[in-house]
Amino acid sequence: MNNLSSIGLFDSGVGGLTVYRALRETLPGENFIYLGDTARVPYGSKSPALVTQYALQIAARLYEEDIKLLVVACNTASAAALPELCVRYPNLPILGVIEPGATAAVTASRTGKILVMGTTGTIKSGAYGKAIRQLKPDCEVRGLAANVLVALAEEGWTDGAVVESVIGRYLETVADFAYDTVVLGCTHFPLFAPVFRRLLPTHIAIVDSATTTAHTAYQLLLRHSLLKQTTPPGTTRFFVTDDPEPFNKIAQHILGTCEPVAATRVDDLEPALPAFMVA
Amino acid sequence: MNNLSSIGLFDSGVGGLTVYRALRETLPGENFIYLGDTARVPYGSKSPALVTQYALQIAARLYEEDIKLLVVACNTASAAALPELCVRYPNLPILGVIEPGATAAVTASRTGKILVMGTTGTIKSGAYGKAIRQLKPDCEVRGLAANVLVALAEEGWTDGAVVESVIGRYLETVADFAYDTVVLGCTHFPLFAPVFRRLLPTHIAIVDSATTTAHTAYQLLLRHSLLKQTTPPGTTRFFVTDDPEPFNKIAQHILGTCEPVAATRVDDLEPALPAFMVA
Repeated sequence: MNNLSSIGLFDSGVGGLTVYRALRETLPGENFIYLGDTARVPYGSKSPALVTQYALQIAARLYEEDIKLLVVACNTASAAALPELCVRYPNLPILGVIEPGATAAVTASRTGKILVMGTTGTIKSGAYGKAIRQLKPDCEVRGLAANVLVALAEEGWTDGAVVESVIGRYLETVADFAYDTVVLGCTHFPLFAPVFRRLLPTHIAIVDSATTTAHTAYQLLLRHSLLKQTTPPGTTRFFVTDDPEPFNKIAQHILGTCEPVAATRVDDLEPALPAFMVA
Repeated sequence: MNNLSSIGLFDSGVGGLTVYRALRETLPGENFIYLGDTARVPYGSKSPALVTQYALQIAARLYEEDIKLLVVACNTASAAALPELCVRYPNLPILGVIEPGATAAVTASRTGKILVMGTTGTIKSGAYGKAIRQLKPDCEVRGLAANVLVALAEEGWTDGAVVESVIGRYLETVADFAYDTVVLGCTHFPLFAPVFRRLLPTHIAIVDSATTTAHTAYQLLLRHSLLKQTTPPGTTRFFVTDDPEPFNKIAQHILGTCEPVAATRVDDLEPALPAFMVA
């Protein structure tokens, strides 16, 4: 790898595009490869072992593209697979979204009472609590799993009465907790930020991982002398593991760019058959 | 295979349990093998080619269990993969849920104006329209994709304000169509039947595939002299492709049985890695 290599990033689907958007803004000269594992979306309700397996498969292929930085643009995969990825690729800078999200939360919170919303996988892992308390040991962290929001985002429903009622139902369950900060701990959730803002009192801060992840990526590249920083703007290649058409449509909506998003389908990651029916 | 062999059935997750429930009631003496592909749930938003590949993988393994009947207890997989499955297993009776659902719809409808709700995969396939018009050519069929309902069911949310608002939002989009029958064309959707009943005027019939599928299964077994019909009650083995625990919990809720559901995890169906990044 060298400073002209691409930055690789992946997510289960379109959620990681909120992280990509921030990276593109912070690093306009870089080239990116984005992979959405749309054949197996969502990750959030699946077990850590399975998500780790998926993440390793994707990382192996992105690695072959000679990337200079791997961004795990998915909270579930960051929580499940980051340690294993770092062991497998000791020479590749790898960045998850949990630590950046934790940094954003600790910066925003005055009372130290922090609500983390994410998928079942992310919340069960306790990864945010660990990362937040590492930065500020006396924080009180509550986790709230909200898988349905991923389905809403993948359907393209990011505002309106339905979204409000789903988020409202989730928030009701933590009404007894006097948090002053909400971490949108799933890369799909920033798409609902305006709804969260409407539903929550103004004294509650809403943070996500995107901006801090982009900032950390910049620092990592700088430290490794891997910044490209050339003009004209860098390019991005989008890959998906199922039919590109629905991805393109929602990606367009999320990125709001004038130039069309045209993802390429890659062979899905699961052809052969294993031993099975072990009972 | 012989009359003591099991009936195999599969779905992407818990939805097929609504079909299993009807089969168990109609065929209390039979043994069943149920497989929920929870590692790759949901199928409904994925492409027909991919769903067909998943269905063939599962069928191949159920076939090794010496089943006497294969029930594709998933509308998306029925729409995508039934022809290919029948080609691959010419000697195995195979039953999808689309034709039984179409029969139920045609029987219930007086005006011939039928609304079919299902996943994107099922609706895009047009399989219900084809099956319904084969039974009654002058029917007018409208399809309505409703993927978010699958996520709600897999989360265990089957009633309440959120479910009402999601179903309401979907139904709004067909307010211009004077249907007198709704087909719940996804095996997850019968779980919301009480909500549909509350939201729809009483003159609109609500039908699903479960009962007619069970009836068709009975007839198929009878015709092939494969009925077991012995007492005591038959057994059921549940398999899933990810962690069994969440499946067991929701299955228990759906089946409402006193004896605990204890699924066995099978090796997931995707170990090795293919050629990739074909761009």
